[in-house]
Amino acid sequence: SLGKGAALALAGAAQAGAAVEMLAKRLTVSAPGKAILHGEHAVVHGKAALAVALNLRTFLQIRPCNNGKVAIHLPNIGTSLNWEMGQLQTLLTAFSGLDQSKSPSPEQMDKLREIGSPIVIPAATESLAALAFLYLYLSISAKYGQIPSVEIVVWSELPVGAGLGSSAAYSVCLAAALLTACGAIGCPLKEEKYIARWPEEELDLINQWAFRGEQVIHGKPSGVDNSVATWGGVLRFQSGKITLLKRVPTLRILLTNTKVSRSTRTLVAGVKDKILKFPAIMNPVLASIDAISNECENVLEAIALSPSQKYYLVLEELVDINQHHLNVIGVGHTSLDRVCQVTANHGLHSKLTGAGGGGCAITLLRPDTDPLIVEAARQDLSACGFECWETSIGASGICLHSPTSLKPEVLQIFSKV
Amino acid sequence: SLGKGAALALAGAAQAGAAVEMLAKRLTVSAPGKAILHGEHAVVHGKAALAVALNLRTFLQIRPCNNGKVAIHLPNIGTSLNWEMGQLQTLLTAFSGLDQSKSPSPEQMDKLREIGSPIVIPAATESLAALAFLYLYLSISAKYGQIPSVEIVVWSELPVGAGLGSSAAYSVCLAAALLTACGAIGCPLKEEKYIARWPEEELDLINQWAFRGEQVIHGKPSGVDNSVATWGGVLRFQSGKITLLKRVPTLRILLTNTKVSRSTRTLVAGVKDKILKFPAIMNPVLASIDAISNECENVLEAIALSPSQKYYLVLEELVDINQHHLNVIGVGHTSLDRVCQVTANHGLHSKLTGAGGGGCAITLLRPDTDPLIVEAARQDLSACGFECWETSIGASGICLHSPTSLKPEVLQIFSKV
Repeated sequence: SLGKGAALALAGAAQAGAAVEMLAKRLTVSAPGKAILHGEHAVVHGKAALAVALNLRTFLQIRPCNNGKVAIHLPNIGTSLNWEMGQLQTLLTAFSGLDQSKSPSPEQMDKLREIGSPIVIPAATESLAALAFLYLYLSISAKYGQIPSVEIVVWSELPVGAGLGSSAAYSVCLAAALLTACGAIGCPLKEEKYIARWPEEELDLINQWAFRGEQVIHGKPSGVDNSVATWGGVLRFQSGKITLLKRVPTLRILLTNTKVSRSTRTLVAGVKDKILKFPAIMNPVLASIDAISNECENVLEAIALSPSQKYYLVLEELVDINQHHLNVIGVGHTSLDRVCQVTANHGLHSKLTGAGGGGCAITLLRPDTDPLIVEAARQDLSACGFECWETSIGASGICLHSPTSLKPEVLQIFSKV
Repeated sequence: SLGKGAALALAGAAQAGAAVEMLAKRLTVSAPGKAILHGEHAVVHGKAALAVALNLRTFLQIRPCNNGKVAIHLPNIGTSLNWEMGQLQTLLTAFSGLDQSKSPSPEQMDKLREIGSPIVIPAATESLAALAFLYLYLSISAKYGQIPSVEIVVWSELPVGAGLGSSAAYSVCLAAALLTACGAIGCPLKEEKYIARWPEEELDLINQWAFRGEQVIHGKPSGVDNSVATWGGVLRFQSGKITLLKRVPTLRILLTNTKVSRSTRTLVAGVKDKILKFPAIMNPVLASIDAISNECENVLEAIALSPSQKYYLVLEELVDINQHHLNVIGVGHTSLDRVCQVTANHGLHSKLTGAGGGGCAITLLRPDTDPLIVEAARQDLSACGFECWETSIGASGICLHSPTSLKPEVLQIFSKV
């Protein structure tokens, strides 16, 4: 368990050689999930999408250890893994000369699977989590100096495999913690602060390493999810180009998981087929979705400057319109219609987020939406068999937490592992 | 009541002087209502719309009389009106020199109100029906020779004021019956035939006179409704230009009246406001609706050539897409959502037709849709408080009926008046 008010006495030294001395105390970081506010599917066809940081977060605690082991605990999936420092050390040469600019090679992946496989039960989530961890541990150690014996606990509020960027939040937390532990980046958390973030260049380094972790997990990730988890706020994504919006508000939302499973690949292929079948009908719909993303971007910047009721009405209108468009391009689902209907009964506006065909939906709340209305909507959604969270979008990216800034439930989970 | 198998012994003579001799026997005509298949609202913004003849018909029977009166009975609204032949004769000069190419003048409208008002209770439907009748009776009489003492009964399957072209069906029936009664056009019904239509030039004359009747009722009608009631089938309407589609199938449908009243003017204004507010989002939606009308036109012609299951699937897809678009432009209504949902539960596809915001919806049926499914859907729609008819679109335009070709319920209504 955590010592009360434990001061984090980590120095800001960035030399690789200082790694062993670096991790004097435990360190807690968190990164947000991701939701698509507008532009899902259209983005595949060259249109803009807005990806937003979802304040359902992944928390990672890294603790100095002296048992000569490196351990990672994943209480969400009931998994604990550990490796001998010596075993990992022998692998360092295979990962030397690497940096954040290089993708994992097939040979490196084979090596990781060799050391990962005897321990890891071949269930996808566990295996991929182990491989991403090993990749980042080894390549960061090889570049900046070996990270000492540590114990890592990762716990997430995000559901896995729901299109909410849980793997990116995991990769970003790992990259930030490991880079801090070996002194590659500083530790911005000062005693008087609850929450601290890194300077821009260091966030950029975290993001680049996290992207490598995402490559281990996903093969060919777009880079959007790790960027959102790193930078937070709202990102515009178009034709492979990612831009961080300068001024954005935090918006209250309900996030609903219909728990209807879907195949993103099948849905994307279905949209393509519809466009080929009815180009004159479908291409204008994509153009309209593109215009929705642009309009939403303008409205978000306007809200950040001066929040006004009228802007929230526009956000609601855009959500309704896009939900219709997503139905037109064939990625709706009766479960999503149900979310829209149930929330509309409470005067709230919803759309699917991500791949569609089930999966998750977001429901906008206004700053002044009565908590009783939110609670009533939540209960109705739960009664449909959906899982529902009240959270926000436009949340902070990766950050460092003082123990006092952590919610009791997070503290409790960390105290048990 | 009608003599069994009464032969219609009307000669085809077209001279004006032959009018008194013309109407030896009663004559029954019918004209269809109208629905918009695709393009409502978009048509206001220069896009194409498809108007279809709806096989809910208005029936008109004209009977020779010898009481020196001209009477019209409207059993749907419980109204009977009559005028002395002599009174009408004195007005003929005010309507002389008129033909189908001239709009009613304000002076003529004033004259009509003078003779109409002492008899007509100032309820809109009755007054307008009387004015349109008087206008057509007087101007056709002035041009082709006075129509003798007759009794006219008009009964309709169409609800009034539901955007289904009931006034145009009325005007077209009146124009056809009065033009036939005075010999301006022939009587194509031969003894061996059940149903007959006029040749193209005579239909054109009927349509032009009916348009004048529509002007009396509506002020500035588009001419689409009377064209549909005259020609039947499917009409394409764009930028004021009306084109009759050459080959079209008859499609089974359910027509549902939600009975939610709406103001077409307010809805049209709302769409315009949305376009002005979000041009980049809304203009592509109008373009997509335009493409739906074009695609539907192609599919209808393909079905007429060779009906195939795949074409019906496309028609259903187009209906679903357009319903979403109509919601996007703001003319949906929860009652219409209900119709879509209830029919979707039976595997059927619906969209609003006309102004929206309530009003009517059409549900496509395939040629092989099981009557039990149709009946179940009808019952569910009735249970929602909606009025529902099983009928068809692409129906025949104005036609003459032999008594044996009339449905028992129509015969019964005519026999009672």
